[in-house]
Amino acid sequence: MSRPRPLSGFPEWSPAERIVEQHVLDVLREVFELHGFASVETRAVEPLDQLLHAGEIDKEVYLLRRLQADDADPEPDRAKQLGLHYDLTVPFARYVLENAGKLAFPFRRYQIQKAWRGERPQEGRYREFTQADIDVIGADTLAFHHDAEMALVMADVFARLPLPPLRMQVNNRKLIEGFYRGLGIDDVPGVLRAVDKMDKVGPAGVHGVLTAEVGLSASQAESCLQLAQISGTDAGVAERVRALGVTHEQLDRGLDELVAVLDAVAGAARPGFEIVAELRIARGLDYYTGTVYETQMVGFEHVGSVCSGGRYDALASDGRTTYPGVGISFGVTRTLGPLFSRDALHASRSTPTCVLVALPDEASRPLAAGVAASLRGRGVPTEVAPEASKYGKQIKFAERRGIPFVWFPRAESGGHEVRDIRSGDQLPADPTTWLPAADDLRPRVSGQPAG
Amino acid sequence: MSRPRPLSGFPEWSPAERIVEQHVLDVLREVFELHGFASVETRAVEPLDQLLHAGEIDKEVYLLRRLQADDADPEPDRAKQLGLHYDLTVPFARYVLENAGKLAFPFRRYQIQKAWRGERPQEGRYREFTQADIDVIGADTLAFHHDAEMALVMADVFARLPLPPLRMQVNNRKLIEGFYRGLGIDDVPGVLRAVDKMDKVGPAGVHGVLTAEVGLSASQAESCLQLAQISGTDAGVAERVRALGVTHEQLDRGLDELVAVLDAVAGAARPGFEIVAELRIARGLDYYTGTVYETQMVGFEHVGSVCSGGRYDALASDGRTTYPGVGISFGVTRTLGPLFSRDALHASRSTPTCVLVALPDEASRPLAAGVAASLRGRGVPTEVAPEASKYGKQIKFAERRGIPFVWFPRAESGGHEVRDIRSGDQLPADPTTWLPAADDLRPRVSGQPAG
Repeated sequence: MSRPRPLSGFPEWSPAERIVEQHVLDVLREVFELHGFASVETRAVEPLDQLLHAGEIDKEVYLLRRLQADDADPEPDRAKQLGLHYDLTVPFARYVLENAGKLAFPFRRYQIQKAWRGERPQEGRYREFTQADIDVIGADTLAFHHDAEMALVMADVFARLPLPPLRMQVNNRKLIEGFYRGLGIDDVPGVLRAVDKMDKVGPAGVHGVLTAEVGLSASQAESCLQLAQISGTDAGVAERVRALGVTHEQLDRGLDELVAVLDAVAGAARPGFEIVAELRIARGLDYYTGTVYETQMVGFEHVGSVCSGGRYDALASDGRTTYPGVGISFGVTRTLGPLFSRDALHASRSTPTCVLVALPDEASRPLAAGVAASLRGRGVPTEVAPEASKYGKQIKFAERRGIPFVWFPRAESGGHEVRDIRSGDQLPADPTTWLPAADDLRPRVSGQPAG
Repeated sequence: MSRPRPLSGFPEWSPAERIVEQHVLDVLREVFELHGFASVETRAVEPLDQLLHAGEIDKEVYLLRRLQADDADPEPDRAKQLGLHYDLTVPFARYVLENAGKLAFPFRRYQIQKAWRGERPQEGRYREFTQADIDVIGADTLAFHHDAEMALVMADVFARLPLPPLRMQVNNRKLIEGFYRGLGIDDVPGVLRAVDKMDKVGPAGVHGVLTAEVGLSASQAESCLQLAQISGTDAGVAERVRALGVTHEQLDRGLDELVAVLDAVAGAARPGFEIVAELRIARGLDYYTGTVYETQMVGFEHVGSVCSGGRYDALASDGRTTYPGVGISFGVTRTLGPLFSRDALHASRSTPTCVLVALPDEASRPLAAGVAASLRGRGVPTEVAPEASKYGKQIKFAERRGIPFVWFPRAESGGHEVRDIRSGDQLPADPTTWLPAADDLRPRVSGQPAG
């Protein structure tokens, strides 16, 4: 077989990169569980009607068919065909409806899984990618304080990860939709879509689209642009919106909600993490109804938002009960891919192994296995050298993988020695009690290249 | 939307079942890392030519196509079409070839991922399922001792999991193929396939297939059946094979290897886990060339092997270098599905939350949030009650989820109390120092029903 080549859009990490990814996933899970979110996994596939009712991105769905499906079989109903899920929100809404009778509401769940979209790959945009979501779902009602909670939980996550500075942006769909309606605009989705392109086409470009395509007057378009340019971290944001002179009941509710979120998250900012009201952001997805979040990684704005979400009051309903929710989703692959390609996130070694037990000769394998078992019993990841060879060669084996310690076993009690191959220090050691420094037990993950 | 229904073959676990599954996955990962295996994840898809060159199961592959693929696009080369992987061995062999220049050999990796097969669902057989694999891959050579290591690592895993008794069966393909060749049989794969059906059709049925379909003489078929009925845990197995009077160089090597594995694993048996040479098992897959493993869960033999693998000397080759390997794969979904449906594996609660901080009134939310943050800072999973209501209602909220502790916050220092809702004991507690019993910090997983 000739050497296979990577598939564009389907990233695979090296063992050292995978250690970094696992650390990130461990932190996400730990923080989510500390906040009382229960893990859910949904199947990778959904019937097409489930995938499409949330709108917009049907072009990107991967459909499944069995290789040997009988040609005589009738083509299944389009709605019943299976496709790979493209996010974790739509499958979770389906899971809640399907299991509503067995769940306790408000239901707090996290979900860390892969998703797939058949779109054109580019940096930060993959065909297969891992998302980490939290959502809180109520039955018929869900208290507003959960809106702020989403940002606070993510702030806890980010405080534990060695990422570039992050800027979380918050807005409120009631606010912007109310503002547009207060201006007498009917085509609210059209304005949202146009304003969403601000980063790409600039204010003048948006103004052009609003007047030429959405059909606004120049004055309406100007007001929309003024709203979109407001940002801030406190109630001053609301004052500046009110100064634009637009009134609408929905606008007032949106302003109250936005200010309440800003108040609740005010303590979460720290060096490397800020939360800012940014009245330009809207989130493309139709299902958001209130608070919306987006997060930029400073220096990596071109990859898009790495942590997004919001309030959705009507995504799931079985006719009798509606399940309002709020959630936020961290793009694990979108965040790590660009950092890996710039060498900006590292593991101190490419294997979990902390100790390599060297082999003086093949006959010593049982002795070495006994040492390894004793070390593992105390939680020290240990492997035995695959073959007896010169000690220099066995030390090189460890060096190549970044394994910090090489153990030299001796049959006579008291004769064992362990060498820290970074310093070259070699000392007597007891296999029944020796432990490495806590810092060396597992690979370390940092934002700086390994020294 | 009407209530969605489950998809046959695509199991989804309840939050409590998912806690059990996570515990199993944590143990697998922990033991694999203690033994120095590095994590690898491969993309979910492979080009069809990769999936099919390993043979046999092409009927079961799910092919992908984009929903909106342009009808004018030419149908892609069949070989280049993408399909979902049906195991983790074939993708890993491809990963090794693709990254050989960057990996250090022998390369020890574990891989815990979903796989997909479009076959008819039945108990223990799913269309989407999670596998946990370890493999060791060498460049051109791989020492034999790794064959036994696969069983020893899995023995460490099983010692930490509350599963029903497990019976690991080992055999050797050189042994059985050499035996058949020593009998003058040419159609070795035909005999392997027939003998593999022993559990389904019995010895007489196999004899019939061997004579009527594979074309053996009655005496050849009889010898094959005698070999297949040999089992044992020590070198006595080899003596009984030799007593059948067949000689062949490959048979001798296979016997030596089998006895060496039995010697090396002799210490791993314990109540609830045995390793037995069973000369009947062969593993269907063509790529095995030496040691093979299968594992039955006692009382659940009908679901098939839950942990299988073996030696493959030629699965991956780039023409210059061949990468021999040995591996073993634990079927997580196949094991858990039948146990869940019999209520034979439990988590002590359905949420990670250990403490619910009750709310005397909505104005106390910041006070309650401060208590929660302090508890989380010491690693105690904590959530704040979603709404202020009567304490009785808040205690019921905790009870329904199995949350063991309810915290009653007080603004005045020294006034906090915590209640163990299982015993009803309620005591003063300091939010800056209180810790639950270590056993209550996380949900407990056991083989017995909770309570």
